[in-house]
Amino acid sequence: MPEHHFLEPDGFVYTFGGQEPVLTIADGDSVTACTRDARGFDEENRPLPPELLPPSPGFHFLTSNPCVGPICVEGAEVHDALAVRIDAIVLNRDNAWSSQGAGMGSMTGEVPGRRLLLNEPLPDRMFNWHLDRERMTGTLELPNSTLGRAEIPLHPFIGSIGVAPRYGRVETTLAPGEFGGNMDCVETRVGTTLYLPVWVRGAQLCFGDIHAAQGDGELCRSALETTAEVTLTVKVLKGWEIHWPRLHDHDWLMTAGSSRPLYEAMQIAQVELLNWLTTDYGFDRDEAWQLNSQTGRMRIGNVVDPFYTVVAKFPKYLLP
Amino acid sequence: MPEHHFLEPDGFVYTFGGQEPVLTIADGDSVTACTRDARGFDEENRPLPPELLPPSPGFHFLTSNPCVGPICVEGAEVHDALAVRIDAIVLNRDNAWSSQGAGMGSMTGEVPGRRLLLNEPLPDRMFNWHLDRERMTGTLELPNSTLGRAEIPLHPFIGSIGVAPRYGRVETTLAPGEFGGNMDCVETRVGTTLYLPVWVRGAQLCFGDIHAAQGDGELCRSALETTAEVTLTVKVLKGWEIHWPRLHDHDWLMTAGSSRPLYEAMQIAQVELLNWLTTDYGFDRDEAWQLNSQTGRMRIGNVVDPFYTVVAKFPKYLLP
Amino acid sequence: MPEHHFLEPDGFVYTFGGQEPVLTIADGDSVTACTRDARGFDEENRPLPPELLPPSPGFHFLTSNPCVGPICVEGAEVHDALAVRIDAIVLNRDNAWSSQGAGMGSMTGEVPGRRLLLNEPLPDRMFNWHLDRERMTGTLELPNSTLGRAEIPLHPFIGSIGVAPRYGRVETTLAPGEFGGNMDCVETRVGTTLYLPVWVRGAQLCFGDIHAAQGDGELCRSALETTAEVTLTVKVLKGWEIHWPRLHDHDWLMTAGSSRPLYEAMQIAQVELLNWLTTDYGFDRDEAWQLNSQTGRMRIGNVVDPFYTVVAKFPKYLLP
Amino acid sequence: MPEHHFLEPDGFVYTFGGQEPVLTIADGDSVTACTRDARGFDEENRPLPPELLPPSPGFHFLTSNPCVGPICVEGAEVHDALAVRIDAIVLNRDNAWSSQGAGMGSMTGEVPGRRLLLNEPLPDRMFNWHLDRERMTGTLELPNSTLGRAEIPLHPFIGSIGVAPRYGRVETTLAPGEFGGNMDCVETRVGTTLYLPVWVRGAQLCFGDIHAAQGDGELCRSALETTAEVTLTVKVLKGWEIHWPRLHDHDWLMTAGSSRPLYEAMQIAQVELLNWLTTDYGFDRDEAWQLNSQTGRMRIGNVVDPFYTVVAKFPKYLLP
Repeated sequence: MPEHHFLEPDGFVYTFGGQEPVLTIADGDSVTACTRDARGFDEENRPLPPELLPPSPGFHFLTSNPCVGPICVEGAEVHDALAVRIDAIVLNRDNAWSSQGAGMGSMTGEVPGRRLLLNEPLPDRMFNWHLDRERMTGTLELPNSTLGRAEIPLHPFIGSIGVAPRYGRVETTLAPGEFGGNMDCVETRVGTTLYLPVWVRGAQLCFGDIHAAQGDGELCRSALETTAEVTLTVKVLKGWEIHWPRLHDHDWLMTAGSSRPLYEAMQIAQVELLNWLTTDYGFDRDEAWQLNSQTGRMRIGNVVDPFYTVVAKFPKYLLP
Repeated sequence: MPEHHFLEPDGFVYTFGGQEPVLTIADGDSVTACTRDARGFDEENRPLPPELLPPSPGFHFLTSNPCVGPICVEGAEVHDALAVRIDAIVLNRDNAWSSQGAGMGSMTGEVPGRRLLLNEPLPDRMFNWHLDRERMTGTLELPNSTLGRAEIPLHPFIGSIGVAPRYGRVETTLAPGEFGGNMDCVETRVGTTLYLPVWVRGAQLCFGDIHAAQGDGELCRSALETTAEVTLTVKVLKGWEIHWPRLHDHDWLMTAGSSRPLYEAMQIAQVELLNWLTTDYGFDRDEAWQLNSQTGRMRIGNVVDPFYTVVAKFPKYLLP
Repeated sequence: MPEHHFLEPDGFVYTFGGQEPVLTIADGDSVTACTRDARGFDEENRPLPPELLPPSPGFHFLTSNPCVGPICVEGAEVHDALAVRIDAIVLNRDNAWSSQGAGMGSMTGEVPGRRLLLNEPLPDRMFNWHLDRERMTGTLELPNSTLGRAEIPLHPFIGSIGVAPRYGRVETTLAPGEFGGNMDCVETRVGTTLYLPVWVRGAQLCFGDIHAAQGDGELCRSALETTAEVTLTVKVLKGWEIHWPRLHDHDWLMTAGSSRPLYEAMQIAQVELLNWLTTDYGFDRDEAWQLNSQTGRMRIGNVVDPFYTVVAKFPKYLLP
Repeated sequence: MPEHHFLEPDGFVYTFGGQEPVLTIADGDSVTACTRDARGFDEENRPLPPELLPPSPGFHFLTSNPCVGPICVEGAEVHDALAVRIDAIVLNRDNAWSSQGAGMGSMTGEVPGRRLLLNEPLPDRMFNWHLDRERMTGTLELPNSTLGRAEIPLHPFIGSIGVAPRYGRVETTLAPGEFGGNMDCVETRVGTTLYLPVWVRGAQLCFGDIHAAQGDGELCRSALETTAEVTLTVKVLKGWEIHWPRLHDHDWLMTAGSSRPLYEAMQIAQVELLNWLTTDYGFDRDEAWQLNSQTGRMRIGNVVDPFYTVVAKFPKYLLP
């Protein structure tokens, strides 16, 4: 009989892997937890108390994207996959922030900790969005633009969700990879099931970094960063060996590839998608590639992280 | 009083720029013409007669994507833009082909004329799609797959459409660029208006390479390649200086950037989109970037041409 | 009996291919000609007269790197190679210039005609070098640096040298490619023989853009740009089909790959080098790759052109 | 009075950072230690005993490049730099191996754990080199090539040498980065001093992976992999804050940038080099860039690791 757990974290993690589990659940159980935003603020906009920050900050990477977890899933072993159904993402705050700045973002030509250019860096700017949770809209004042004020629809999703990686640990929950992580993929929303490879006993699931809305690529480096109460149902798929995150929703089979350069993220996602179609759905590889070439879609998760994420999508109406 | 021209080409072009116009039209006129498919076959699957092939083929680039034109537009001068409204794309053949093969395609790691790898090249394969123009579907036999036969919806669009480039000429209508060209962008469909920069008197518009359907990226190197009767209405926008193709349809403002690597195509499109928003719609640059980061979408035109194309999209509901 | 031609150009070309030859020579003949610098100035620092500029400048690409030629080589046919021995590069001016500026250069993150960034562009700066042709040194005043004045050794080489391309023409002598072109490769110096693929009858050799010195990558976008009297001896190698430029000097076999991104330029050069070793020197491919992996060198020609150039080098002491 | 330590490791590390030091030395001390080869074999070609392997291998990354260390350097604090003078690299074995194979190497288009292509992978091959330590040459039998047998000069250097990273730990000693690591840079040889940023107290220096010889780029994925007795002298440079590894030898100031894509590794190295020239040698930035553009050299460390390494070199004769 599946159980529903309410996890009240008394701490957060900043790595994928290498942490003691804070909760152990059975195969098929559900978990509800409240997440912090990408800078650690909670649903009342209170920052993390100093004692919950990682020991030696210094570099902003270290304190970004605090995640809930890890959750140990009983029965999950190497060569299994974890199926994570996203049941609910309930926004629990009336505001979100976003920012632009030096050294990060698709049009600054730079990445954190790495100066690539001689040009003057861009100025830092912070944007404060108001969230109307009734109407599911976000509004932003635009004092310097003719429009004056923008209102956009919200579509909440989980920015960071992943398991312990293939070996060791990933040192920042800003990174996406084979283990999932900070994919910033708009598809990790309610109604989607995310499949993650299991590389360590118990899988060690973590999540956080809720985005109330985001465009393709998260161009300026941050989305509508906010908090939510998230509910997930977790199953173990024994012996289903996958190499990169997969997803499905009502309409699509999807795979997420993360790497640099951007082209390589795309290639990873496409190879994994063809693997899926040929192994599980009886497709000849070349015929699957032909169909995917004519009907597939791609979404660019983000182009600002240490690695970029591309989601490849194959329409389910073409499955046998 | 705008005129409607019926252009029956007695030849085709394989370059953007550097050709004598085959038709001169007035600002505001419309043109209807039948296009050849990407290998030069017509609506009855007849190949181009040898005398219409370019003088010294040899390399397949030279005979790919024969285009209709150039059409000289009276009044179009340097620093103007050309507005090309796509009025109709009427498929006029019951079949389309697609192919995969060595040295081209997103997952072969190669580009035409350039060996990059030591691996054995992929085998060539040709796929023949049947088009049902009533139901607007394409079907493909899949003899080696469980599915057996696939049916997909059609969404015809123009694969190649462009003007004479900034200087000289572009030697293959397989190339996209500032001048438009082989963008393989699913957005150049009925209902869309395409804006192209004018660099030579008369603009010298060419088009062809109809795709009955295509997934994002044209991954295997070709779409559902077919023929159509295309109708365009062309206007000159005096003094509207743009640097890359722009588009708009019912919902989106769009820009198309083409380059290599893929990331750079994205950057070009995004910079041009911000230029548009700030210059024509009264946006502050950082505020426009913020809005676009939260609401923008991207489509990847193709990742197999000499240059790749990314289309950046900004929602029109956010315009003042 | 080989002949020595003195070519006094009364015009210059700005494209590879698509031009009428200004001189026809026999297989084995030599040619001496004086080149202009990258902006068209001659050995007395006189600019090109307006009537020798290309018809519609506008864009600076169009007037960069004027080249001498084309020279038609009798007997050169498709599938042959042209061997160009560099006999002399005699500097004939006491100055050279170099510049940095917006939108071009390894650390501006931009390329000509393509804005990729939101950052402010770099300021334009021009540097004037004095050349001491006795001592073969260049000196530069450094008013803002402790050093005050720098003196460096000269090592003159040909920046741009190429033939008509595989099809059509290349619209700017700033571009490198399969045809050679603006490789900015320090190895095209006296004592080196350059091999170029022949794609059109007569090969149509052009050259210019002498660099008195240059670091790897031509990082700031220009070298010590100057003029010289250049002497070349040209032979036709019948039936020696090559796909990219090759070079040899006293110590090395070399191949030059040009493309974007940089990695791909490297791959092209390495594949062509292995082709050479296996086809002409009896190497097993994997054994050649092993040897090259342990002994090969690479030089980065430039990282600022429309395409980048990497030269792969294999030591001649390992040839059988 | 500096001390000379002889370190006989009873274990090896496979990460940079996150390990307890096996030795603590004073500022100015020297250390001598024998390294294992990239697969853990010692100077008598004995493999690592199972109990010295990392707990859960599985993925080959985990057992590659076992390193000696970490060595805690007294007095090294955040914002300092560590100066590591390479005093001796004494080869202590008569053989070296190298290999090529699927999924890694410059011309396979793939990286470990990431399939990017549909092509068949390359076959695995192992090459066994004989080392003549008297004559300092390596020889390889080439049964399938005309040459039959190759002899090349040796130039031993340290493939992997680094400190604890900015935060957390780097999970594989195959990775290069800001902390140094697996740069595969031929310049880390006797006579060179390597400067590494210090991010944790004691710096935590590790090293291993001796290469008896290597071409630029380590193209096939491995060099002449062997063992040596290495002697280093280590000094703390208080308050000299650097962001990436720097090196100097008799002729050059050098910086090493590691990233993907390759272009970005180059940019990182060049920015760090200009920082060095402007901060420590009184150069104006643009003047330094100009000089470096005309006299600088670059070496490509490797193009097969998780990140690539480019070394930028500025000639010391131009220092004031």
